Amino acid sequence: MYIGIDLGGTNIAVGLVTDDGKIIKSGSTPTLLPRDYKEIVSDMAKLSEKIVAEEGLTMADIDGIGIGCPGSVDSRNGVVAFSNNLKMEHTPLVAEMKKYFNKPINILNDADAAAYGEYMINGNNVDSFIFITLGTGVGGGIIINKKVYSGFNGAGGELGHITLVHNGIPCNCGNIGCWEAYASVTALIRQTKEAMEKYPDSKMNEIAAKDGKVNGRTAFAAAKAGDKAGNEVVKQYIEYVASGLVSIINIFQPEKIVIGGGISREGDYLLNPIKDYCNKHEYNKYLEKTELSIATLYNDAGIVGAALSCKK
Amino acid sequence: MYIGIDLGGTNIAVGLVTDDGKIIKSGSTPTLLPRDYKEIVSDMAKLSEKIVAEEGLTMADIDGIGIGCPGSVDSRNGVVAFSNNLKMEHTPLVAEMKKYFNKPINILNDADAAAYGEYMINGNNVDSFIFITLGTGVGGGIIINKKVYSGFNGAGGELGHITLVHNGIPCNCGNIGCWEAYASVTALIRQTKEAMEKYPDSKMNEIAAKDGKVNGRTAFAAAKAGDKAGNEVVKQYIEYVASGLVSIINIFQPEKIVIGGGISREGDYLLNPIKDYCNKHEYNKYLEKTELSIATLYNDAGIVGAALSCKK
Repeated sequence: MYIGIDLGGTNIAVGLVTDDGKIIKSGSTPTLLPRDYKEIVSDMAKLSEKIVAEEGLTMADIDGIGIGCPGSVDSRNGVVAFSNNLKMEHTPLVAEMKKYFNKPINILNDADAAAYGEYMINGNNVDSFIFITLGTGVGGGIIINKKVYSGFNGAGGELGHITLVHNGIPCNCGNIGCWEAYASVTALIRQTKEAMEKYPDSKMNEIAAKDGKVNGRTAFAAAKAGDKAGNEVVKQYIEYVASGLVSIINIFQPEKIVIGGGISREGDYLLNPIKDYCNKHEYNKYLEKTELSIATLYNDAGIVGAALSCKK
Repeated sequence: MYIGIDLGGTNIAVGLVTDDGKIIKSGSTPTLLPRDYKEIVSDMAKLSEKIVAEEGLTMADIDGIGIGCPGSVDSRNGVVAFSNNLKMEHTPLVAEMKKYFNKPINILNDADAAAYGEYMINGNNVDSFIFITLGTGVGGGIIINKKVYSGFNGAGGELGHITLVHNGIPCNCGNIGCWEAYASVTALIRQTKEAMEKYPDSKMNEIAAKDGKVNGRTAFAAAKAGDKAGNEVVKQYIEYVASGLVSIINIFQPEKIVIGGGISREGDYLLNPIKDYCNKHEYNKYLEKTELSIATLYNDAGIVGAALSCKK
């Protein structure tokens, strides 16, 4: 049994995870930034103990604790090298947590944790696996030789920050033309709003008015209802997503790619045109191809991946 | 002592390589395509024996033979899965070579071999290393955990075929907007010709007339001589190169990237503006950065890498 912790800028989510990756109990507490990291670790420890106790267990039943957090993580030394979200820099999170629990404790980047979670549940033990999340941003994680790969400094796997459009629109990261600026939910909402303005009679306007806002589902819902402008938005968005995936495939030829994040709930409606595009545009035309599928763990992926990353 | 073979569509180059990667003898023979792969292997074997004999050695002194060849290679099974250049498909090259020499024989993709050669000579034994070659195309190789990474099907590492410009110009691979279509020597020559037409008074026209043709050095030579149009071509070309490198860095955060191929002979004149661009545009702003440098082996990289790939 393991503890998986998803340490976010807003909430600390803790889960009790079985050896085969099932969350049997979970809870959360606010991160309450900004505050000293020692207080955050203290809360992580308390919440872990509480959840374990609620299941009638003690911390002695726990084989390891995994912590996923945003930013650049030095897993080898158990240190958050830099996290803008958490306002941490060279923070020895593992050493601090060890003061509470003397057991294997692992820390890794949150996208890497989510990738590892999806890998452990949906990866079929393949050697090479990529996880892409289409959320507020475009995140990702790389599994090579069954292990998370994050570069020599822990800052690798920033798959959302490959260039999609040279000299394209500004990205949050400070660069321009990043995949994330075209393929995130944020980008889709922007693309939807632009189309709504251009086509005020489209179903998107109707749907957004009913929902009270434009979200990542607006264009998809309109497209499914036969709206031409909505269909155009979705088609263009899927092309952006798939075009970035072609780069990823041409580089890695991973055995599997799993697509997660909010948009992935569109399922086959999203996946099938992505597959068609990749099939048509990828470099490899003669050999066995990467299998593309939709994630299944959603928000649990980070907790499951962090927990199982302690498993030897 | 090892034999390294660079099996190309035009020539078979064979080198006798020391344990520390020095070529002490080499030779070549035409590939004479199309012909049966058994005849090609027979020529590879004969040339190997000849070179070894010329050094006063016998094949008993050779610890292994490495073969680099274009296309998708199934290294594990010693098979050329598919090579357009060599007109090979599921060709058991290693098994055939074993008929001549009963010793370790390894086959790998030629760009991977070159990457491994540069890695072994210039890689300082780092864990993660990327080699990029700016030649007729843009090629590359990935070294992770000190080993060549080429995906589950052997077709990975096609670094020239990441998208640089969504919906950009056609690439040889059938896709559009690939990095290769903007950053190869072929692309630079096209960019130079376009600028020469636009600015008939530029030094580029003068230099090309003297050389009898436009080549990858034309714009660089003009730029160095203070030609404004030449400088514009070089500046734009370097931006294309560097923009693709930013994607590579954001994905891999490799400890080292080495840039080879014909254009790399421009040395610091190429490297320094690339470093500036990457520094400004890459995602990682807080942690140790990837070291960029220029290759040193040029055409020998493939032979050295193939040879040393047999070394256990």
